[in-house]
Amino acid sequence: MTIAQSALLTDLYQLTMLQTYHAERMQETAVFDLFVRRLPDRRSFLLAVGLEQALDYLENLHFTAGELDWLAGCGRFTPQFVASLENFRFTGEVHALPEGTVFFPNEPILRVTAPLSQAQLVESRLINLLHYQTLIATKAARCVLAAPGKLLVDFGMRRAHGAEAALLAARASWLAGFAGTATVVAGMRFGIPIFGTMAHSLVEAHDREEDAFIHFAAAQPGNVVLLIDTYDTEAAARKLLELAPHFSERSIQIKGVRIDSGDLAEHARRVRRILDEGGLKEVTLFGSGDLDEYRLAELSEAGAPYNGYGIGTRLDASTDAPTLDMVYKLQEYAGKPRRKRSEGKATWPGRKQIYRRTDENGILAGDCLSLENAPQPGEPLLQPVMREGKRLGPPEPPADIRERVQRQLAALPAALRANRTDASYPVEIAPELRELADRLDRETY
Amino acid sequence: MTIAQSALLTDLYQLTMLQTYHAERMQETAVFDLFVRRLPDRRSFLLAVGLEQALDYLENLHFTAGELDWLAGCGRFTPQFVASLENFRFTGEVHALPEGTVFFPNEPILRVTAPLSQAQLVESRLINLLHYQTLIATKAARCVLAAPGKLLVDFGMRRAHGAEAALLAARASWLAGFAGTATVVAGMRFGIPIFGTMAHSLVEAHDREEDAFIHFAAAQPGNVVLLIDTYDTEAAARKLLELAPHFSERSIQIKGVRIDSGDLAEHARRVRRILDEGGLKEVTLFGSGDLDEYRLAELSEAGAPYNGYGIGTRLDASTDAPTLDMVYKLQEYAGKPRRKRSEGKATWPGRKQIYRRTDENGILAGDCLSLENAPQPGEPLLQPVMREGKRLGPPEPPADIRERVQRQLAALPAALRANRTDASYPVEIAPELRELADRLDRETY
Repeated sequence: MTIAQSALLTDLYQLTMLQTYHAERMQETAVFDLFVRRLPDRRSFLLAVGLEQALDYLENLHFTAGELDWLAGCGRFTPQFVASLENFRFTGEVHALPEGTVFFPNEPILRVTAPLSQAQLVESRLINLLHYQTLIATKAARCVLAAPGKLLVDFGMRRAHGAEAALLAARASWLAGFAGTATVVAGMRFGIPIFGTMAHSLVEAHDREEDAFIHFAAAQPGNVVLLIDTYDTEAAARKLLELAPHFSERSIQIKGVRIDSGDLAEHARRVRRILDEGGLKEVTLFGSGDLDEYRLAELSEAGAPYNGYGIGTRLDASTDAPTLDMVYKLQEYAGKPRRKRSEGKATWPGRKQIYRRTDENGILAGDCLSLENAPQPGEPLLQPVMREGKRLGPPEPPADIRERVQRQLAALPAALRANRTDASYPVEIAPELRELADRLDRETY
Repeated sequence: MTIAQSALLTDLYQLTMLQTYHAERMQETAVFDLFVRRLPDRRSFLLAVGLEQALDYLENLHFTAGELDWLAGCGRFTPQFVASLENFRFTGEVHALPEGTVFFPNEPILRVTAPLSQAQLVESRLINLLHYQTLIATKAARCVLAAPGKLLVDFGMRRAHGAEAALLAARASWLAGFAGTATVVAGMRFGIPIFGTMAHSLVEAHDREEDAFIHFAAAQPGNVVLLIDTYDTEAAARKLLELAPHFSERSIQIKGVRIDSGDLAEHARRVRRILDEGGLKEVTLFGSGDLDEYRLAELSEAGAPYNGYGIGTRLDASTDAPTLDMVYKLQEYAGKPRRKRSEGKATWPGRKQIYRRTDENGILAGDCLSLENAPQPGEPLLQPVMREGKRLGPPEPPADIRERVQRQLAALPAALRANRTDASYPVEIAPELRELADRLDRETY
């Protein structure tokens, strides 16, 4: 049993509350919504990703004998309660946005309808899974929008926050439109195309840079991208011209060169000129080093002749907005809508649906958050995906999700598509939902 | 085989380079240093944590049959190279800073000495493991410094970047001085004390807030912390006074109350007054909600009467500095020192040691980065921890690491201890090291 699949990958208070619900026999149906309360300063839209892992988690959730023993021995739980967890399974219903759907604050991306204990226990891990992939898919989509037509590759494994983040960043960025990842295990696990070049250490381990290029190309003849900035970028590009006859004699094709330091735009222009003048027009340029959507936009503006980019640290940790205010809140229990009223953190109660309108060109024109039983104009976005604890269909093919993302990005209003952070999108609260909230405020205490 | 233990949790270019080294029979000894190039703007020191997981990784590293099959079938590697990985093990030597040691830019926290391929392959995961725990331990230490004497608990699991981040954030923050974590699996795996209260949903699932308090307390009589901000914080505190006879009749002791929204300082003062005047002086106050070292310092300055705090999202994602510029660089190969000279990214070559001086009060007075064979005044910090691929001793007891951290924080110069971001600490480069670098610059190309 890995940490990632453990039922104990949850907050202690979930189990403490479950013990209360067990003692009080509070097992009626609860409805929880998972949503983002507000956007980070530098985001104007979000991309919902992570549903597949969330549904996996719900389908497989159970306590192992070892976990039950540990709970029984930790001094916090009654034997009756621990015994009740032996057959614990998730048997509820889930509605969700299809992976790759654009969404906005207050819009539920997942709704869980299940006996109270089941719906409660899963809060921590559901947020953990959907938060991270949504965060990274959104960041990756911004990179895709900033560098149209460029080949983008996830290079972020080493500074992702742990193993699972590295794996899921590769998935989320690929679904958002990246060409692939450098993280090998993501290729094996998810079939994501893998990309890689070489590191400075390979050059340094040789006494002469030329030897490093020759050895590396010989060992990997079909896929040679040489890193040329270890000592002097332009000098290395000129070495490549000298080596061209050596490579062509051996039918080795140099696919590209990578530049990882200095003024990336200026180096690219100079290297492009050297290669073009030397007859190596087909060798592509690949840039890396602290890149993100802002740097990509600058490089694009500067006309830097790169064919592709490796985006690492700033993607996998989403450094300009490393978290989202994503929460999971009770909206109904035992048939009654519920509303939290904590200052600045009030929620919209009841079973809700998002209705999305588009204009005559298919561009998003405004959303309305309403109750499921009070439909509004537009397309309803939340769809049933799980019933009685089982998925309603096979996992969606990644190609379909990737296509959805590109359609969704193309349908964004221009200001959002331009990554403008002052851009905003109208999400209206339906009168029926406001009335319900007002009524609950008068009734509840 | 989990993702976290997979030999394929690495960047593709490591394997591509290994294929080159295999083809060229380049298997002499390489020396790599793992270090941080520069501090994030808002950090004046770092805390080295994660060595235990790094050594676990090195001791257990191997390719499974399934992984070898996948590599053989992916179309990038020769059968000879894939066959050579069958018996791949890490057989090298490791020097490192003991976990919980304070360090500064350019100071190696880990040095790997091993045949080139072994030392190269492990780069991505070694950084991945040491980067995250160092990041979080440093953030947690800053919180500890900002809230002396307060009980601090890691609440960050849900917005940590994935499962492993959640687990390791609990470990790193505990080692840095936190009292424990809310993440249950970290309690089971590492023996970290676990803490928890209740969520708003428990209150909302009841028709009356009082009933929620009564039920929760009855189910958890030894450890009751009530969340009081679901509707009206002060009103809830007064309800507690009304319930006091009910609880004392049943020998239920209310340990504390948690406040999670609004003006935390003001609510704490009001609630403290209500509880004190009502005879509940022994009930403690626990604060939470978007806390970090800056908010803790403000609350402390405002005299907010909290006994402890839950620190979540901003800890587990280290939101004000979500990554470190941590790298792993070749410093020697086949007996010759090596130096990368990329613009802005040049490295210090050779086998190095950090020498740390302290003043007469034991306060850190300056470090010197030198070569191992050119000792300087002060205590040498890097210690041998692994030889021939095996640990030199059992894992260090967490209590010892926790004590080391507290000694180290107490020994910081006052400006660093105050979390002042304009504070800096002197790290000198020894003349012998400068000379070596200069010599290599003249010789290498």
